[in-house]
Amino acid sequence: MFDCGKIAIIGGGSWATAIAKIVVAHTHHIGWYMRRNDRIEDFKNLQHNPAYLTGVHFNINEIFFSSDLNEIVQNYDTLVFVTPSPYLKNHLNKLRARISDKFIVTAIKGIVPDENLVCSEYFHQVYDVPYANLACIGGPSHAEEVALDRLTYLTIGCADTAKAQAFAEVLKSNSIKTKTSSDVLGIEYGSVLKNVYAIAAGICSGLKYGDNFQAVLISNALQEMNRFLQVVCAAEDQEYSFTVDSAYMGDLLVTGYSHFSRNRTFGTMIGKGYSVKSAQIEMEMIAEGYFGTKCMTEINRRMHVNMPILDAVHNILYERIAPQVEIKLLTDSFR
Amino acid sequence: MFDCGKIAIIGGGSWATAIAKIVVAHTHHIGWYMRRNDRIEDFKNLQHNPAYLTGVHFNINEIFFSSDLNEIVQNYDTLVFVTPSPYLKNHLNKLRARISDKFIVTAIKGIVPDENLVCSEYFHQVYDVPYANLACIGGPSHAEEVALDRLTYLTIGCADTAKAQAFAEVLKSNSIKTKTSSDVLGIEYGSVLKNVYAIAAGICSGLKYGDNFQAVLISNALQEMNRFLQVVCAAEDQEYSFTVDSAYMGDLLVTGYSHFSRNRTFGTMIGKGYSVKSAQIEMEMIAEGYFGTKCMTEINRRMHVNMPILDAVHNILYERIAPQVEIKLLTDSFR
Repeated sequence: MFDCGKIAIIGGGSWATAIAKIVVAHTHHIGWYMRRNDRIEDFKNLQHNPAYLTGVHFNINEIFFSSDLNEIVQNYDTLVFVTPSPYLKNHLNKLRARISDKFIVTAIKGIVPDENLVCSEYFHQVYDVPYANLACIGGPSHAEEVALDRLTYLTIGCADTAKAQAFAEVLKSNSIKTKTSSDVLGIEYGSVLKNVYAIAAGICSGLKYGDNFQAVLISNALQEMNRFLQVVCAAEDQEYSFTVDSAYMGDLLVTGYSHFSRNRTFGTMIGKGYSVKSAQIEMEMIAEGYFGTKCMTEINRRMHVNMPILDAVHNILYERIAPQVEIKLLTDSFR
Repeated sequence: MFDCGKIAIIGGGSWATAIAKIVVAHTHHIGWYMRRNDRIEDFKNLQHNPAYLTGVHFNINEIFFSSDLNEIVQNYDTLVFVTPSPYLKNHLNKLRARISDKFIVTAIKGIVPDENLVCSEYFHQVYDVPYANLACIGGPSHAEEVALDRLTYLTIGCADTAKAQAFAEVLKSNSIKTKTSSDVLGIEYGSVLKNVYAIAAGICSGLKYGDNFQAVLISNALQEMNRFLQVVCAAEDQEYSFTVDSAYMGDLLVTGYSHFSRNRTFGTMIGKGYSVKSAQIEMEMIAEGYFGTKCMTEINRRMHVNMPILDAVHNILYERIAPQVEIKLLTDSFR
């Protein structure tokens, strides 16, 4: 059986912290790259992440921290990337060590800007990592609930089933159930699109559309996601059949129906009439789906899939078309 | 084009009242059967339903009320049945007029007990109504939101497309969008199953499972619904393809994710440890999914579809198995 070897986490946010907690409970040692040395010092002193999931206690002796990405890459076999997608390129730019022989797991629910590639494709095209060495983590997974040991189902995607299974074993616990999939691209695209759809759900909520309509919106979103994945991920002559799985539909539901989702909250403010800029200032952060919307729109310019929800969100966020106008048009396209 | 003729509503609850509002805005006349004469008198005096959706004003001159079902049946061409399913048989027992030549629309999201038939099948088998005269109304539709003119999408199912279209025209308005379908049975079964799944969602919520798990539960519920409809409603060698439509998935979402759903609330109390009896007393009403669970379980004894969620809810409600035990087993069956 494939051995994941020594595992390191790249990134210091809440999902990174939740994954670190899961992994270290199994391996009792992890490497952990964080950009800021002061954060690492605080982490060591406090024995928890000073900024995210502060309730999760870590045994500091089980963690090798470093703010030097090359040091981590050289000393670890499996690298779990959990940075926000807009910053991934910056982190990787520091890289001098080879990573093409590492096992790369991405838990980044976003797209690399400019290149407009999902993360596994970026590692494949730019860093020559073979598909067999590229995995992703999908599934409905609020980090806060994982931290609280609430039952969560994760899907490990990898072209190499043995590697997917090996990493699934590392994550498995009483509160984490795992399954494997070969559909890496589909899981990654699905997790980007669901952020776009969560923004749409927020916009409609901000415009005072009700629960009846939200249910229609989310149903249409799943159909739209399926149309895209059919074109991008299905073998020819084959029906794409994964969309109702928890890694796709479940992830869409947990984000689209959550009032704690940053993407949904961002959308709600837009629907209420905030400008993109003022919503971002108010939230003190940028919702990932904001970038995802632009990237997916550009990708779909080549694919020509019928994606009215994506188009509507793009027009609202980037073309300054009034939400009420754009959503009214959208409602006419729904069934 | 088919003409629906004179339309009457059978039933006096909130969904009946919402449908009456939609129809009478279009036709400016409806018949309306309610069981209790005192309710009818109050309705006339108040100019709104005294018990449900009391904010919806009606022009009393546009309504012919009667507590005599035969009088309504004799004088109207299209009969829209919107009674709770457990009481439908009682109402119909009073019937002496023929109804096999009427256009029967059922908006009852439930199953006729004992016979274990969805309503259209009951009208067909017991009252000889031909399939071409049987329609149903599906789609995510909280009556309260319809009353508030919140945008709502309804699906009219009928084997006779012209009739479905004609009735869809009667419902269409600025706030009601309609589509038609030939899958009457599927819509009816779906709307029964979604109540069962809303109870399951409530039970899990009562047991303190989180949002990550709820998303997995609802994804698995849609897959379970699809497995059942594949066996019961799909032509041989054909893939059942409707389940992601708003009449199925949308209806499931609006019920499963709504904190106002009676079925979900009932489930939550069961999950928190209430007995079925005390939950029913506390709620002062019986959640329809309670009966639906029993009926669907009995129906599935013939069909042998793998339905772990239905089985779990049945075991909890009718076999007195502890929710935490039953849901723990269920989580192991999920993917």
